Amino acid sequence: MSFFSQKANNILPYIPGEQPKDNEYIKLNTNENPYSPSMRAIEKIKSINFSRLRLYPDPDCTELRNTYSKILGVKSENIFVGNGSDEVLATAFQTFFMEKENVLMPDISYSFYPVYSDLYNVNVKKIPIKEDFTIDIKDYMIENNGIIIANPNAPTSLSIPRQDLELLLENNNNSVVLIDEAYVDFGGETVVKLIEKYKNLLVVRTLSKSYSLAGLRVGFAIGDKELIDGMNKIKNSFNSYPIDMIAQIIAEEAIKDIDYFEQNINKVIKTRHWVTEKLKLLGFDVLESKTNFLFIIHHQKSAKEIFDKLKSNKILVRYFNKEKINNGLRVTIGTDEEMKIFVECVKKIVKE
Amino acid sequence: MSFFSQKANNILPYIPGEQPKDNEYIKLNTNENPYSPSMRAIEKIKSINFSRLRLYPDPDCTELRNTYSKILGVKSENIFVGNGSDEVLATAFQTFFMEKENVLMPDISYSFYPVYSDLYNVNVKKIPIKEDFTIDIKDYMIENNGIIIANPNAPTSLSIPRQDLELLLENNNNSVVLIDEAYVDFGGETVVKLIEKYKNLLVVRTLSKSYSLAGLRVGFAIGDKELIDGMNKIKNSFNSYPIDMIAQIIAEEAIKDIDYFEQNINKVIKTRHWVTEKLKLLGFDVLESKTNFLFIIHHQKSAKEIFDKLKSNKILVRYFNKEKINNGLRVTIGTDEEMKIFVECVKKIVKE
Repeated sequence: MSFFSQKANNILPYIPGEQPKDNEYIKLNTNENPYSPSMRAIEKIKSINFSRLRLYPDPDCTELRNTYSKILGVKSENIFVGNGSDEVLATAFQTFFMEKENVLMPDISYSFYPVYSDLYNVNVKKIPIKEDFTIDIKDYMIENNGIIIANPNAPTSLSIPRQDLELLLENNNNSVVLIDEAYVDFGGETVVKLIEKYKNLLVVRTLSKSYSLAGLRVGFAIGDKELIDGMNKIKNSFNSYPIDMIAQIIAEEAIKDIDYFEQNINKVIKTRHWVTEKLKLLGFDVLESKTNFLFIIHHQKSAKEIFDKLKSNKILVRYFNKEKINNGLRVTIGTDEEMKIFVECVKKIVKE
Repeated sequence: MSFFSQKANNILPYIPGEQPKDNEYIKLNTNENPYSPSMRAIEKIKSINFSRLRLYPDPDCTELRNTYSKILGVKSENIFVGNGSDEVLATAFQTFFMEKENVLMPDISYSFYPVYSDLYNVNVKKIPIKEDFTIDIKDYMIENNGIIIANPNAPTSLSIPRQDLELLLENNNNSVVLIDEAYVDFGGETVVKLIEKYKNLLVVRTLSKSYSLAGLRVGFAIGDKELIDGMNKIKNSFNSYPIDMIAQIIAEEAIKDIDYFEQNINKVIKTRHWVTEKLKLLGFDVLESKTNFLFIIHHQKSAKEIFDKLKSNKILVRYFNKEKINNGLRVTIGTDEEMKIFVECVKKIVKE
């Protein structure tokens, strides 16, 4: 259409997992946390002076950044806050990779990365993951203008050891290395502390998964001050106030509630362990997850068939119609009850 | 810095008005509404099931769009929701104007427009406003690939009659005409209903001013379905969920509370009238405001001097160090009490 920019005409947007409007489904398709967010954070809402909504929120999220910096053991100036890690990633792509050639990322990873690359004219070199779905960090030790890796990776659920990423950072000083740690709290190894040593390291985090706050839209980037300052330039050329006043307060309180955070994580991990064992007994290959989801492959039944039959039984999981991963399913870890129903249903499907 | 994209290196971000952390100041500098948002909207917060924050919010803001569409008398498909009208504007710039030549806007208007133009490589032709600060719509009836006009305009506070904008639309069918109605509720004439007749008209709105919800970050675009679909393509290539769950609910309830909305507007307008009269008596030219702010010019005292002296008296207004408007001040309409203090202080300053 002639009213549109070339980009608006041609881009293929990201397609998020289904969000059915009714509550009939067991939703294991968008990696949401099955547990409520911190009650301390919810209680805090009562003390908010809502008449202050008439004022613009703090554009710098000063209190939230101060609190998070203490928890991570970095400085406040090392933290960027965005409207979910999606906005953080979009800002990072514009700040570091826009219009550049030869930016490296795995061929199988978060499917929003190629959309950002398209939107911001990033020329990507996709590095194939291995047959066993792992990322071999040596494949990235080549000439490049940027590296983007999710650790743990999605939808594979696999984690890269910290020492491997440090090896990569030692051998890659001239471009920004973005490590997306959306799922790291569920058992991965964070590289956050390495930002002091590597000025080109940017770590991206979110409250959507391990803090049960997908509905709040708060994500972070952590990196050297110079990287963060650059991101703020782009952010302040786009939207000065992307985090509303209420979200800043809830996010801060949720981050402070470390006890609940740890309980929540441990519950998800415990459930993940028993579901993994059950699925293996049903003939599934289950990749060794360090996330709040599983990537599972069955060798007799096709993934699409299992997906469809689960859906007709009101259980939603994620199927990717994409080479290399179209034989698997991504299954979010729900509550124990939900996962028992899921396992029972899968059992019937694979034994038919 | 070599880590940065060319854009991140070169862009000059938007600079919002000062947001002092202490409460010592009378803040008449960022066009915030002095009154609380709708109590009905604040009460509604109590009924929110906050445990649902664990889930992603509705990416399409379905309920909010349905409600707003009824109030505006358009269809839900004609409405786009963004994180404040700033994000809406950024999305519109990407969708309609990115990389284009000869996009028209007034030389004096919202200072974020040139920043978006820079970020998205829009080649702008700035049309000079008249000596009396008005916009002459005939100046825009020239070859173009887009027109952006704030109505009422900022910081001038002046409004363009609907019939003038309709004349422009009749004579401009081949490019998108964006009318930014951030301040229209305070006395301007909306063109929202013209979207049915003109497929190239996009109207931008915000809850930040007339709904006292600057802290919530909700803005809208209203236009033909095809324009809105294009904006959603860009939005879904950037951030699927920019409006959090709580903000969607509060915004919807605030919009429903029409009585409060009208009371709020009327109070601001009433205050604006008497402040205007007082300032005229003190020797100011006061432009005929249809907004929640005034643009005032004094012929003896310089604007910068008045600004500085007000600030040292703990009153913040907005001074733009920019040709054509550096002889004036933009003064937000506060409460009657705040404006009495302001008028008294100004009186002393101009009589010194």
